[in-house]
Amino acid sequence: MENTAYSKGLEGVIADESRICKIDGTQGKLYYRGYSIEDLAAHCSYEEVAYLLLYENLPTQSELDIFSLKMRGSRDIPPPVREMMLAFPPAAHPMELLQSVMAYLSSYVRHRIEHSVNCNCRETLHQVSQLASVVATYGRFMQGKEYVPPRRDLSHGANFLYMLHGTEPDPLDGELMDKCLLLHAEHDFNASTFAARVVASTLSTCYCSISSAIGALYGSLHGGANQRVIEMAEEIGSKDNVSAWMEKALGQKRKVMGMGHREYKTKDPRANVIEKLLFTLSERKKDFRYVEILQEVERVFRAKMETAGKPLYPNVDFYSGAVYRLLGIPPILFTPIFAVGRVAGWLAHILEQRSDNRIYRPESLYRGPEPRTVVPLEKRQ
Amino acid sequence: MENTAYSKGLEGVIADESRICKIDGTQGKLYYRGYSIEDLAAHCSYEEVAYLLLYENLPTQSELDIFSLKMRGSRDIPPPVREMMLAFPPAAHPMELLQSVMAYLSSYVRHRIEHSVNCNCRETLHQVSQLASVVATYGRFMQGKEYVPPRRDLSHGANFLYMLHGTEPDPLDGELMDKCLLLHAEHDFNASTFAARVVASTLSTCYCSISSAIGALYGSLHGGANQRVIEMAEEIGSKDNVSAWMEKALGQKRKVMGMGHREYKTKDPRANVIEKLLFTLSERKKDFRYVEILQEVERVFRAKMETAGKPLYPNVDFYSGAVYRLLGIPPILFTPIFAVGRVAGWLAHILEQRSDNRIYRPESLYRGPEPRTVVPLEKRQ
Repeated sequence: MENTAYSKGLEGVIADESRICKIDGTQGKLYYRGYSIEDLAAHCSYEEVAYLLLYENLPTQSELDIFSLKMRGSRDIPPPVREMMLAFPPAAHPMELLQSVMAYLSSYVRHRIEHSVNCNCRETLHQVSQLASVVATYGRFMQGKEYVPPRRDLSHGANFLYMLHGTEPDPLDGELMDKCLLLHAEHDFNASTFAARVVASTLSTCYCSISSAIGALYGSLHGGANQRVIEMAEEIGSKDNVSAWMEKALGQKRKVMGMGHREYKTKDPRANVIEKLLFTLSERKKDFRYVEILQEVERVFRAKMETAGKPLYPNVDFYSGAVYRLLGIPPILFTPIFAVGRVAGWLAHILEQRSDNRIYRPESLYRGPEPRTVVPLEKRQ
Repeated sequence: MENTAYSKGLEGVIADESRICKIDGTQGKLYYRGYSIEDLAAHCSYEEVAYLLLYENLPTQSELDIFSLKMRGSRDIPPPVREMMLAFPPAAHPMELLQSVMAYLSSYVRHRIEHSVNCNCRETLHQVSQLASVVATYGRFMQGKEYVPPRRDLSHGANFLYMLHGTEPDPLDGELMDKCLLLHAEHDFNASTFAARVVASTLSTCYCSISSAIGALYGSLHGGANQRVIEMAEEIGSKDNVSAWMEKALGQKRKVMGMGHREYKTKDPRANVIEKLLFTLSERKKDFRYVEILQEVERVFRAKMETAGKPLYPNVDFYSGAVYRLLGIPPILFTPIFAVGRVAGWLAHILEQRSDNRIYRPESLYRGPEPRTVVPLEKRQ
């Protein structure tokens, strides 16, 4: 007898083994290679975390020196890629540009396509480095500004702000940007990472697999929420308006953005860390607009949901947009910045997939017509 | 207790329901929307099959007239896209170019991103039409030749040959090309189609989903075999060399290309149809090189495998490359041509995914380190 049981969206279905990420949705904990993200955010840079994801352990100082040198040496965008970016239609979304540029880079930078776990993607780190440069440069080009060549003395996050703004960021701003990127670096078999693994399972290139992951992150059910949280905060305007706004929004069955996550039964642990970062940043910038509105939205919304017996908590997108906004970043770049952080995780998953590969080829449950015969065109009605 | 059973590559796991394609691997039958591919290849054009895949039924004459008009009206490639193709590095593989161009097109042609089953992708048919034009045009550019504007009076297959060669093809050649494309149009949840569905499940655009599918088809475990069959045939050189070549190849444990398929326990039904097309074409061109060599390879290889108790049969890639070669197509275009055919199936699956969507988010079985504490950088050894 045919088996017809299945789980929509593969929810709860194990797709493969993995040594990279553990999510404890009940306790609200997230670990990269065994380290909690609170611990990593407190003590590590994005480069250390990228190393951890790719090599399974945190680097020693000398390992980090070599790794940073490679990563920083890969930041510059070759002129033809900049030309291609400039030729992009102004109405394009930067995620479309990113997906296109990543596949373009596959053929541009000098790299061997080895289709193996030993491919030199982990050596050149072009994807991880250049994704940040492409997003920052897009941010400049969209404002009609010139390309800013990267600097090697800055952290990954600080150099991103430098290439975007054209001025050296305040060191604390640079560090904050770096922390936000590492908090987004990895999250197990989410849709974009899973897409990267499916493509990698055919033995396609790292670039082409990452390009495909970007296509998935672009979707409004996946990477698009951080931009919409900030639009919501701006619509609300001030802390005092929150209760009235919420009454109206819930009455109209509008979705409150940045709330809820399939994996967590608690507040997303990343949201806790980013909330603290946002508070520190707001103090430093003497600008409490966003943090006050968002904390009030969280308080009012959670109380309402708990009363209704349907508890829902902030996810990673809830406070991150406000941080980016206070760092002077335009909202159209928020989803691309998610990709800038996540690319290290994608690459780790691509390499893991190749290390013990089987091509993904699930079954469908056929519900279409029974066999039938073609009626010639002239006799069809 | 935690469930730790899983199936690598999701083999045998149902990922979703589908009304598009049925594969009967035991009987060696393949149906699109209930019609066997033998029946479709005998009576239908690529445009009729694309209509069938997208609208669930074969078109009447008046429905086909409207559909063809739209599809043929979308064939031209806008000048900036041609510029972008020309700027591609000559060493790039055309599959990298295709993946990049598809995401680029997402932002170029005028289309609304509706993220819904009613998006106008099915109306404009840009992806289906332009993929063929991009591949033909790449074929010209790689030979240093000019762009050939499309013609509206030719079938999808004939126009492809026209845009590639710059001369109107023999009508029988055009028809044959058209049949080959429809034979590749759909094959259920293979890796590229599954990648397209995963990306579409985030509500990303049709273009970005198709771009991701191209990334998967590029992989050497998926779309790359047809090119390698023809390289094998050319290495063998003549029918008389087959037995000796086979002894040596099997002795060296070399893989015989174009043989075997996870889904079929018989000869791939598409291989049967394409073998007949190849024979007809060989007669017409008075060139029996390839068909003689390949039929002999099939005969000798199948006999050996049956004797060894490990029967293996030709798949879709075994005879298709020889057809393309006799139509004057360079082997580097064989995998891209697979995409030109398959894109109608990808689009049908993307629309089906959206019609009853749940984002793909499977689980991993965590096998990594237990929770551990970050040792500060300066103390790591």
